[in-house]
Amino acid sequence: MRHPELCTAETIDGVAVLRFNRPDRLNGMTGNMEVAYYERLLAADADPEVRAIVVTGTGRGWCPGADLAARPGPGDEPLPNTIMPTTIPLGIGTPMIAAINGACAGMGLALALQCDLRLAAPGVKFTTAFAQRGLIAEYGLAWLLREIAGRAVALDLLLSARVVRSEEMRDLGLLTRVVDADDLVDEAITLARQLGGGSSPASMATIKRQTTRAATQSLAEAMAEADALMHESLRGADVAEGVQSFLDKREARFAPLGHGTRFGWMDDD
Amino acid sequence: MRHPELCTAETIDGVAVLRFNRPDRLNGMTGNMEVAYYERLLAADADPEVRAIVVTGTGRGWCPGADLAARPGPGDEPLPNTIMPTTIPLGIGTPMIAAINGACAGMGLALALQCDLRLAAPGVKFTTAFAQRGLIAEYGLAWLLREIAGRAVALDLLLSARVVRSEEMRDLGLLTRVVDADDLVDEAITLARQLGGGSSPASMATIKRQTTRAATQSLAEAMAEADALMHESLRGADVAEGVQSFLDKREARFAPLGHGTRFGWMDDD
Amino acid sequence: MRHPELCTAETIDGVAVLRFNRPDRLNGMTGNMEVAYYERLLAADADPEVRAIVVTGTGRGWCPGADLAARPGPGDEPLPNTIMPTTIPLGIGTPMIAAINGACAGMGLALALQCDLRLAAPGVKFTTAFAQRGLIAEYGLAWLLREIAGRAVALDLLLSARVVRSEEMRDLGLLTRVVDADDLVDEAITLARQLGGGSSPASMATIKRQTTRAATQSLAEAMAEADALMHESLRGADVAEGVQSFLDKREARFAPLGHGTRFGWMDDD
Repeated sequence: MRHPELCTAETIDGVAVLRFNRPDRLNGMTGNMEVAYYERLLAADADPEVRAIVVTGTGRGWCPGADLAARPGPGDEPLPNTIMPTTIPLGIGTPMIAAINGACAGMGLALALQCDLRLAAPGVKFTTAFAQRGLIAEYGLAWLLREIAGRAVALDLLLSARVVRSEEMRDLGLLTRVVDADDLVDEAITLARQLGGGSSPASMATIKRQTTRAATQSLAEAMAEADALMHESLRGADVAEGVQSFLDKREARFAPLGHGTRFGWMDDD
Repeated sequence: MRHPELCTAETIDGVAVLRFNRPDRLNGMTGNMEVAYYERLLAADADPEVRAIVVTGTGRGWCPGADLAARPGPGDEPLPNTIMPTTIPLGIGTPMIAAINGACAGMGLALALQCDLRLAAPGVKFTTAFAQRGLIAEYGLAWLLREIAGRAVALDLLLSARVVRSEEMRDLGLLTRVVDADDLVDEAITLARQLGGGSSPASMATIKRQTTRAATQSLAEAMAEADALMHESLRGADVAEGVQSFLDKREARFAPLGHGTRFGWMDDD
Repeated sequence: MRHPELCTAETIDGVAVLRFNRPDRLNGMTGNMEVAYYERLLAADADPEVRAIVVTGTGRGWCPGADLAARPGPGDEPLPNTIMPTTIPLGIGTPMIAAINGACAGMGLALALQCDLRLAAPGVKFTTAFAQRGLIAEYGLAWLLREIAGRAVALDLLLSARVVRSEEMRDLGLLTRVVDADDLVDEAITLARQLGGGSSPASMATIKRQTTRAATQSLAEAMAEADALMHESLRGADVAEGVQSFLDKREARFAPLGHGTRFGWMDDD
């Protein structure tokens, strides 16, 4: 890793906790920090000890968007997306939980919506920001807002770029829960452990793909694909443990996500 | 029908009431029961006396998913989906109302979401179940959850497979209403009669198709198709009665759904 | 314009206020009024003084749908959609706010949902109407309802054609806000000015297109398009003003929407 300090990582009982780490700038994004984040995601996804990923920020901010004051300098890469594709979070099979501790705007909001579940502290400020800067909906933000909360909410937040607090974000369906600031990361880790404990990693990776692919499928196509995947999963190792643990009324012990446990169709796409 | 007793049917004032019927197993699904359900759906859809369909369960359960204890035996078909396509509910033009009286999980949840409207008794337990069994989102469940309640709710319920009660299901947009258990089937029949009374069967069948097709259309494509269908419907028999009854301030009397009343484009697709 | 009196227009501080104007018929739609509306929309979108559009109705109604009592006469055009395409509202880059003062049904509901934001007076009656007339979901109504509020709400409102009041429409996600009747148009103008003041017209036009196109894109496609648009917007005139005004903590002064400020890809589509 070239700039490991810009996004720290530690693994706590099977949960990788990643932290944006430019606290003096509220974790304003730079090209180097973006690369560090993607490298941490890929490493966590490949680590058999990691069952879920929590993404949070050091200090008072989560990520208020690109750091407009940061200009490319000698030590900086020219543009992040010429180095690593911005679609990396889409390919992560491990569940991702955003623990949003502070300001979340622009590109930061897109990164939060790319996670699977989102918890936030009370009163955090969210804004799409772009229209007020003469920019467009970057990093898939229009797609993500519309996909999660529908067309009207997407247009409202994107056109006005108004500031929305955590409580309204939850009411709009954009947050899973609002959690007391002191408990935020702990609750995210607890939620991550519940996923990592009760659900099969291979199942979760497949289900994430199914949900993303559903956006461009007809129901008939989605059902045909589900049918093929069901038959493949029935030949997998996890289903025996899943059924047996259910009949035994105990928690299942599933294998970690690995190349051997991913279903074959995932390589084709 | 090969196993009519596994899904009973009676017609009450133009409403076909179908009941999953393995009450000793809470209506856990078997291949034979799935076939019986599809055959009942097709029969109701073809019956000119039927204006709407209510689907409920005998006893304490609605359908808690595939019956894991039921293994294919001599009298059972090998696999249901090799016998009848699981997409049969998608082609039903008659409105379908789920009256969810008890546990609704896994495949049972997918069947409930394939209905057009859903009422449930208070406190019913819902869960996607699959990730905890090492399985994937079967029967279009990822598509249906995302289509009804958005990507974030779909991922929440699918990845965690947590148990959700009726009241939260309603708040997530996945139920039309929560209804007192004693009144559940009666209210579903009342709602079905309102549809069957006030709305044109041919219109409803077309509108169901439009709503399903919208998922893969651009707005311009949807408008072009609506334009063609509008002109076709203006040549239909129902519009004269629909306009006249409106001007007379009385309830319309529409013809039942039949081959003559379905609009032509439906044959192409 | 052939029938300018059927849809009036005035510009108030950069906001074009359009009014359906057949108050003796609650603004029931005719072919001529539809043409007048589209011509007003196109004129407002081309006017560099106009930063946002408010659509409301004269008198007690907004638009209760096609005027069933109005039959084509000598002065009327044969059918509106043979004259001007019904997709005109989709191509309008200027933000559109519906200020719904009274009855909103059928085609009127579709026109309201084609706007970007919607305010309504308390207690206004909304209905899809079509199924009760033997018609289909016209003017993209199935697509729009599903896109804004999801599949289940769309099916509920379309199949039953039940009357829904403003407050329930807001709870279903179909209205941005319910506003006291006396303040309705003023609040819509205030909201329009906020958009017109704080957000770049070129950004808003692009973001509207991104949100509409997202409906048929995969997330990867949406992100690739956003990436190209981002680079184009970074070469635009508005971004310098957008960033500078942010650093100066003052409101930005953006150029009006014009051919020079629209991003190039918009011509291809």
